[in-house]
Amino acid sequence: MIKTDILIIGGSAGGILTATTAKKVFTDKKVMLIRKTKTVMVPCGIPYIFGTLKDAGKNRIPDAMILNAGVELLIDEVVKIDKENKIASLAENEEISYDKLVIATGSLPIIPKFINGYDLNNVFPILKDEEYLNDILNKLVNMQNIVVIGGGFIGVEFAEQLKKDGKNVTIVEVAEKCLWQAFDNKICDIAEQEMKENNINVMTGIKVKNILGNEKVEEVELENGERIKADAVILGMGVVPNSNIAKEAGIKVNEKSAIVVDEYMRTSEKDIFAVGDCAEKTCLFTNKNIPILLASTAAMEAKVAACNLYGLKYLRENKGTISAFSTKIFNKSFGAAGLTERRAKEEGFEVIVGKFTTMDKHPGSLPGTNTLDLTLIFVRTSGVLIGAQISGGESVGEMINILSLAIQKGLTANELNTFQVATHPLLTSSPIAYPINAASLDALTKY
Amino acid sequence: MIKTDILIIGGSAGGILTATTAKKVFTDKKVMLIRKTKTVMVPCGIPYIFGTLKDAGKNRIPDAMILNAGVELLIDEVVKIDKENKIASLAENEEISYDKLVIATGSLPIIPKFINGYDLNNVFPILKDEEYLNDILNKLVNMQNIVVIGGGFIGVEFAEQLKKDGKNVTIVEVAEKCLWQAFDNKICDIAEQEMKENNINVMTGIKVKNILGNEKVEEVELENGERIKADAVILGMGVVPNSNIAKEAGIKVNEKSAIVVDEYMRTSEKDIFAVGDCAEKTCLFTNKNIPILLASTAAMEAKVAACNLYGLKYLRENKGTISAFSTKIFNKSFGAAGLTERRAKEEGFEVIVGKFTTMDKHPGSLPGTNTLDLTLIFVRTSGVLIGAQISGGESVGEMINILSLAIQKGLTANELNTFQVATHPLLTSSPIAYPINAASLDALTKY
Repeated sequence: MIKTDILIIGGSAGGILTATTAKKVFTDKKVMLIRKTKTVMVPCGIPYIFGTLKDAGKNRIPDAMILNAGVELLIDEVVKIDKENKIASLAENEEISYDKLVIATGSLPIIPKFINGYDLNNVFPILKDEEYLNDILNKLVNMQNIVVIGGGFIGVEFAEQLKKDGKNVTIVEVAEKCLWQAFDNKICDIAEQEMKENNINVMTGIKVKNILGNEKVEEVELENGERIKADAVILGMGVVPNSNIAKEAGIKVNEKSAIVVDEYMRTSEKDIFAVGDCAEKTCLFTNKNIPILLASTAAMEAKVAACNLYGLKYLRENKGTISAFSTKIFNKSFGAAGLTERRAKEEGFEVIVGKFTTMDKHPGSLPGTNTLDLTLIFVRTSGVLIGAQISGGESVGEMINILSLAIQKGLTANELNTFQVATHPLLTSSPIAYPINAASLDALTKY
Repeated sequence: MIKTDILIIGGSAGGILTATTAKKVFTDKKVMLIRKTKTVMVPCGIPYIFGTLKDAGKNRIPDAMILNAGVELLIDEVVKIDKENKIASLAENEEISYDKLVIATGSLPIIPKFINGYDLNNVFPILKDEEYLNDILNKLVNMQNIVVIGGGFIGVEFAEQLKKDGKNVTIVEVAEKCLWQAFDNKICDIAEQEMKENNINVMTGIKVKNILGNEKVEEVELENGERIKADAVILGMGVVPNSNIAKEAGIKVNEKSAIVVDEYMRTSEKDIFAVGDCAEKTCLFTNKNIPILLASTAAMEAKVAACNLYGLKYLRENKGTISAFSTKIFNKSFGAAGLTERRAKEEGFEVIVGKFTTMDKHPGSLPGTNTLDLTLIFVRTSGVLIGAQISGGESVGEMINILSLAIQKGLTANELNTFQVATHPLLTSSPIAYPINAASLDALTKY
């Protein structure tokens, strides 16, 4: 029997970072990571295989990361966990005994069995598998008309990349707006406008009724009877936790099949942790379970778990998920963190909203200057920041993380009105129009 | 006599933002801003006039900003403040009576009278004046050999822009490294390397002895006797507070001529405030006076002053200057906030330093990916962050502001190890290698 101190099941973001962090924190422990696939895909990089990268092999997370950290890697599948005897059974190799186990088995794409024709050829769910993705890539070469079902981040990013690759792209979203879970209407509209200006056919507020075709997809029929020609369909309808191995072992999962964890990422079983998409997420603001399955959230959980594997060495820092997102659609970048105004109101918060629009460089005459549009959502009584949304240039990618930090630390409009920043003509907005300061003041003047 | 409620002297970053913020917070007050020049330059944009913009007119702060806010603008010079009677005398117009006065007269470049030849023709100090700057621009057209004296931010940025414009550029810095006040050696070296690779002649650790020439500059002579051919010299040796008007009015200034202010930006005189380069700066970490004269610092002070003009409406948030900088040199961007390791040790802090190097996009095969290098400096006993330095791509510009905020709020390595971020392939590092988290863990493992 193979023996290890720390065994991690799953080789994507959550698994890798648990393994490398555990090895750094508990240097004398043996850390082993098991995964099914020979290579690992950067999960959020998958859409970019289809336009920018043109090869799934270029989207690998290099194994050097774990090997250089001193983690042992085994390519195999765990088929059973015996939690009493602390043994994992494998498909190919002998059993492994562990002291601490971390389940990081991720998620699986939602397959819409409720739509006729979901299983036709060339209807592609997105699996995180290099060979499978290169196979789609090759098939798409000779296809022109692509329908993306689902207008969340993955759907929008696929639509953008396939359009850049010269395809005729339609995106169909059942809700009123694409990206509605992360943004309020104003920024959803900017994103949809950016897609429309780049000739993506954006259809919102409508359901797909049937996927039609003989063996392979030929058309997508909407509930109003409209038919869209389709050589292929990309399914971007979200993902669900991949928790079967845990469920079968008698580890507690919630009604959405997410493995129940505490704030240190411990499951219902002593010495078994779970991190990433397979683990339950709790909203920072409401303590409700929320289905925010993101590699960045997985990464935070991985660090919390890894640091606390042997006794609780570090204070818990998973006080709940803040739902922080960013993306780029053609020439516009977008970021969101925390609650939208819509959701804040649904949850019963009385809010004050601060807004500010400016340029992301200064003076605005500098080449490459973008309009930057920021919305900050504060709780009225306390002034505490609970949500932020930005559209602008690429600087949005890190600016949203200033606001992620501010939300996590409960900062107020008063503090953000005057917090000190570094500014530079080529890199940021002007100091006299720094958007976080300015939108905070806008909120303060609404009291 | 003209009457106003709030009078602001000075039309650059500090003055503008005091005026517009005061008008937003005290909507019923009359706010007037007086400045000497017809137009106002974006202060940090000035180097970019000489390479990218090619016209000082493109580097204006638009007056629309103050006029649309309802602030009255007067082009004139205040020659005397009568603080007893609350009257400002002007060079051209009649007197103005005020209720609250804000002095935002900025700074003046250091003129090195200790160097022979400092006053030769074509030795240019940098004044924030559109006509003067366009005059330099025109003169430089037919000049090839430029010596920049001073390797701080302004000097380095001028050198970069003049080089981009095809000049033969030498930068002379008396200290061992360019940018040494903001960065420790590692990042100074990256910046110098970037300049050298782009054929700027970087000379450090050496003094300028003489500026030689007949009427106009011809050569710069160093203390070792070496002579550098120079058709023009740019002086980037720093600035000093422009506080004469305050001093003459009997307002308290410190030994470096900076107007003494409290945490609400109030001077020694009731109803007179000072903000920006003319006002004293206190270090957040040591409470010592420090000469950090930045538009972004001025902006923070402006908001603090403006919000507190009539009674102390908002809590003070000027608890001290954190010295936050950013810049871009050719293809590398740089950011710094707080203390360097060198200065922290000089001040008596026992520190733990966390470091991490990664790519600023993920996967690293994406076009435009840069190496990102982060150093975090924590106080050993408390784990509190007191300094940060980054080199990388343009995302550094806002990433340094995450760390500015973390420093201002006293965040610890433990908190930053697991703080949640948004990540995206095109916009940020990978979630499993997010540099702030990773450098914090690196520090934690050094205990």
